[in-house]
Amino acid sequence: MPGPAVAPPPLRRRGERMRQAVLGAVVELLSGEGLTGTTVAAVARAAGVHETSVYRRWKTRENLILDALTTELDSALPIPDTGRVREDLVVFFSSLARLLGTAQGQALLRLSVERDGTLDDRRLPYWSCRLERAGVLVRRGADRGELAADADPGLVVEAVSGPLFVRVLLSAAPLDETLVTGLVDLALDGARPRTR
Amino acid sequence: MPGPAVAPPPLRRRGERMRQAVLGAVVELLSGEGLTGTTVAAVARAAGVHETSVYRRWKTRENLILDALTTELDSALPIPDTGRVREDLVVFFSSLARLLGTAQGQALLRLSVERDGTLDDRRLPYWSCRLERAGVLVRRGADRGELAADADPGLVVEAVSGPLFVRVLLSAAPLDETLVTGLVDLALDGARPRTR
Repeated sequence: MPGPAVAPPPLRRRGERMRQAVLGAVVELLSGEGLTGTTVAAVARAAGVHETSVYRRWKTRENLILDALTTELDSALPIPDTGRVREDLVVFFSSLARLLGTAQGQALLRLSVERDGTLDDRRLPYWSCRLERAGVLVRRGADRGELAADADPGLVVEAVSGPLFVRVLLSAAPLDETLVTGLVDLALDGARPRTR
Repeated sequence: MPGPAVAPPPLRRRGERMRQAVLGAVVELLSGEGLTGTTVAAVARAAGVHETSVYRRWKTRENLILDALTTELDSALPIPDTGRVREDLVVFFSSLARLLGTAQGQALLRLSVERDGTLDDRRLPYWSCRLERAGVLVRRGADRGELAADADPGLVVEAVSGPLFVRVLLSAAPLDETLVTGLVDLALDGARPRTR
């Protein structure tokens, strides 16, 4: 008979279990209560841990929320590969629009534009790393001859993502599918008439 | 001999002079000290008025700063009319990029994305009214046959202005002339190859 399975060190396991419970509570509170309702006290209560334990581990409420959001949204915005640049871009930026339509996505973006020296620097890299990956879609389109050889991937990505971010941050206008396809088609075809 | 000129009511005149002095001090402090350095105390000191007078008139620091900025920047972003859509758009959005490069423009944009119930609603209209006017440039281009008849003015304006706003708010990337011409050309010509 095999011996009993070796349990992981109880302290570390408790730490990781505590982390999961706390981060899960943050995500749930953000969805229900929004950013301002997500206080350390409310999170601690929901996760069944002491407030002091939360502060000991995450130092500030903002770092806690950032840890929760970047963990939760780590796999958001995957890079498609349909073989057609328009479809790739529509799929990718529709995911971005959907993410920015969620309480979590909005909270992450809003925290990302806060000027707060106490926040660590995971905020900008979250967005820039995903937008850089989207540039690959443009590069592939140029390689396939669908786009001009000198098409600027970063510019295309900014021209489509910029309005989505601005609608969340500034104008509060809706992020619908028509907007994404309109922006992608504008970036690909331009507003000048094309001879077809 | 004519009699002495009739002076305006001293109280009102003092009020308007006081307003000009205070708003001028705000704009100057913003340029030198930035948003966080522009406290009501510092403004009152610079303008030679009592802090209580400032609070009586503007209620909050944010309303004071907004009043100063929207007054100072009221005539910013005029609408050009060169007869060519590309040049009109480059001129207009270069002004926007320059405005967003100043301490005042950045402060106004940053205040505009704050979620603060105490602020009055002059913030979004400041931007939306100017961006709507920029849509006129696109419409004129379509009327002249430079752009497709169904070109969407709002979409073109968002695709060029969005990245400028995002660079100020999120990525802190520079706003140079190359960026503006690149975004305008992308919105006009698109990234697909054109037969010329």
